[in-house]
Amino acid sequence: MTAGLPDSSLELRSTVTSHGTVELSLADVPVPSPAGNQVLVRVEASPINPSDLGVLIPGADMSTATVAGTAERPIVTAPLGDGALAGLSARIDKPLPVGNEGAGTVVAVGEQPTAQALLGKTVGIAGGAMYAQYRMVDAGACLVLPPEATAKDGASSFVNPLTALGMLETMRSEGHSALVHTAAASNLGQMLVKLCIADGVPLVNIVRKPEQEALLRSLGAVHVCNTTSPSFNADLVEALKATSATLAFDATGGGTLASQILNGMEAAASSAATEYSRYGSAVHKQVYIYGGLDTGPTVLTRNFGMAWGVGGWLLTPFLMNAGAEVVGRLRARVAAELTTTFASTYTREVSLAGMLRPEAFNEYVKRATGEKFLVTPQAVT
Amino acid sequence: MTAGLPDSSLELRSTVTSHGTVELSLADVPVPSPAGNQVLVRVEASPINPSDLGVLIPGADMSTATVAGTAERPIVTAPLGDGALAGLSARIDKPLPVGNEGAGTVVAVGEQPTAQALLGKTVGIAGGAMYAQYRMVDAGACLVLPPEATAKDGASSFVNPLTALGMLETMRSEGHSALVHTAAASNLGQMLVKLCIADGVPLVNIVRKPEQEALLRSLGAVHVCNTTSPSFNADLVEALKATSATLAFDATGGGTLASQILNGMEAAASSAATEYSRYGSAVHKQVYIYGGLDTGPTVLTRNFGMAWGVGGWLLTPFLMNAGAEVVGRLRARVAAELTTTFASTYTREVSLAGMLRPEAFNEYVKRATGEKFLVTPQAVT
Repeated sequence: MTAGLPDSSLELRSTVTSHGTVELSLADVPVPSPAGNQVLVRVEASPINPSDLGVLIPGADMSTATVAGTAERPIVTAPLGDGALAGLSARIDKPLPVGNEGAGTVVAVGEQPTAQALLGKTVGIAGGAMYAQYRMVDAGACLVLPPEATAKDGASSFVNPLTALGMLETMRSEGHSALVHTAAASNLGQMLVKLCIADGVPLVNIVRKPEQEALLRSLGAVHVCNTTSPSFNADLVEALKATSATLAFDATGGGTLASQILNGMEAAASSAATEYSRYGSAVHKQVYIYGGLDTGPTVLTRNFGMAWGVGGWLLTPFLMNAGAEVVGRLRARVAAELTTTFASTYTREVSLAGMLRPEAFNEYVKRATGEKFLVTPQAVT
Repeated sequence: MTAGLPDSSLELRSTVTSHGTVELSLADVPVPSPAGNQVLVRVEASPINPSDLGVLIPGADMSTATVAGTAERPIVTAPLGDGALAGLSARIDKPLPVGNEGAGTVVAVGEQPTAQALLGKTVGIAGGAMYAQYRMVDAGACLVLPPEATAKDGASSFVNPLTALGMLETMRSEGHSALVHTAAASNLGQMLVKLCIADGVPLVNIVRKPEQEALLRSLGAVHVCNTTSPSFNADLVEALKATSATLAFDATGGGTLASQILNGMEAAASSAATEYSRYGSAVHKQVYIYGGLDTGPTVLTRNFGMAWGVGGWLLTPFLMNAGAEVVGRLRARVAAELTTTFASTYTREVSLAGMLRPEAFNEYVKRATGEKFLVTPQAVT
C-alpha cells in the first residue's frame, strides 16, 4: 500500500473458458508499492486498438453476448465461434489482463533516481494490462510526454506512431522508395500521411469511402484510391506509376486487395517494358499484412511475375530487430511530434465498466475505420 | 559457313500473333561461324521443362490446336485463352526461339585458346534457343561434361540441378535447417531427395500419388506425404515436427497447398507452446513458389500467426544474387555428380518436327510429374 492511494483498484480481465465462452469482467487487484527503479502509473487514458481486440474477445460472437453482474461490475459472456477453442488452448481458464498502451500520471516511485525523476510526470507506457486503474512499470519503459501534453494526448503514443515509423524504416531498409497503405483513413493512416509529407516519401492511400478520401486530401494526401470506385484498379495503377511504390502495408489481410496491389505494381513496372519477359518484371514487389480487418482467406491471383512477396509484419519483432538505437530515435520523434504528426482522435470515451456494456462493445468490435474508443479507467461509471 | 557443316539448320519458333493465336513452326537459319571466344554447339539433347512451356505455348489452348504444313515442317496454330493477349503485348508478331538448356558437341570454335580447348567436347549449355540444331555461345557458358557422359546425360545440367542446389543455398542463407518440397516426385524432386540425403538436410516431400510415394522412398526419402491421403494434414504436421522445417519450395502455386504447409509449420511450432500468444509462434515460416503447375489463385487461410512469408523464387535472380564464386561451386558439383545425384530420366524423345505433332504436344502440355520429354534436334523425323 502506498500513502494516499487506495488499497485496491480495478483491472479488466478476459477469460477463455473450457465451456467455449469468453468472459469479460473487472477484478479487484491490490495497488502495488514501487521499489527500486519501478514507478506506479495512475492510468488515465488507453485506446482500444484492433490489436487489443484479439486478446479481449478472441473469436467470440459478441452479437449473442449476455451481460450479468452489476452496473459497476458487469460480467459479459459470449460464445466462441466454431473451432476457435482449439487455437486458444494455452489461455483456457486463465484470466488475462488486456490493453497494450496508455498514459497517465506517475503517482508513486521507487528509491532509484531514474524513478524519482518521474514523480508527478505524465507518461505514456506500452506494458500491457492497461485497461486498469493502476499499472506498475520500470521507469525505462515510460515515455515522458511534453509538458503541455495530457494523458489523452499520450494514450496512443506507442502502437500507431511506432507502426507508422516502422513502415518507413522497413521501406528504407528493404530498398523501396515509396509506400502503399490500406485502411488509410485510420488514425495510423492519418499519421502516415503526415509523416510521408514531412519526409518527402510518395504514398498511395487506399480507402473505402468518399469521405475518407476527402479527409486524407484535407491532410495533404496526393494519391488516394477508393476501392468502391469503378475506376479503382486504373486509379491504383496510375498512382503506382506516379510513385513507383513497390511496398505496401495492408491492414485488411483477407480478400483480393493484396493481390490487386501486386498486380497494379506489376502493371506499373511493366508499362515501360519493350522486351517480353515470361517471368514478368524483375522489380521486387512486396505486401506486408499487418492486420486482419478481413479475417477471410488472402486470395492471390498471380499475374505479377515471380519477383514478389507477401508476408506478416508485426511491430514487436520489428522493434526487436531494429535495435535500441533505432527505437530510441523513433521514440524521441514520437515525443517531439506527439500533438502534431502523431495526434490521435477518439470518437467515444468509456470507463472500464462502460467497456463491458453492449452499447460500447457492439460498436468497438466492428473495428470501423474512423471510429476509435478511448478507455478512461479513472471514470466512475 | 563452317567447313564440314551445313549452310542452314532448323530452329523452332513460337509466335504470338495479333490475331490472338500462338504459332509454332520450324525456321531455316544460317549456321554461324564462331570467332574469338565463341563456340558452335551441335545440339543433341534438350529437355522440355515447365519453364520452357511458358515461352512455347503461353496461355494457348492446345486442345483445339490445328496442324498444317508438311510432316517435316509442321505449323501448329492454337488460340490464346481469353485475356491472355494483353499480357503478351511485348512479344506479338515476334517469332521467339525456345528451349532453356541442352547439351551437344562443340563442332567449331573461335581462335581464342579458351574456345579452341573445347573443340570436340561434349558440353552442357543454358543459353536459350536450344530447340535448334546448332547454337553458338561463349566458351565460358559451356559446362564441360565428364568424359563418360553423353549429351543426353548433360541435357538437364542447368535448370533442375541448379534449382535444387539453389533451394539448399537459400535454406542456409535464410537461416532454415530443413526443407519442404511439393511436386516432389519430379526429376527435380528426385535430385533434391538425393542432395538432402548427401548433405544431411531433413526433407519433407509432398506428392499426389502412392506410386510417387514409393518412388521417393526407394531413393531413401524418409518423410513423404500424399495430398490425396485422408491423413495428409496430420501426416504433414508430424513430418514438420520431426524435421522442424520452416521453409518450403512449392511448384504448384495455385490452390491451398502453400497455406496448408504454413498452417502445418505453425501447428508444429506451437505444439510445444505453454504460453498463449495472440500473434502465433515467433518462428518465421516461409513458402517460395517457384512454379505454377496450378495456375489458379493462391488461397491463404491465415491461421499461422504473423511470422510468415510467401513469395516468388526464380533461378536466374538467385544465381545473379549468389555471385560468381557460389555459382562456380554449384556448377562444379553438378559436373562431378552429373550421372548420379543429378541424373535425369526421360519418358519420351522427340525430334524438332516431332514436338509439333499432336501426339507429342498433347502430352507435354500436361506438365505431368514423372513424364519428361527430351528433344533430339539432330533426329530426322
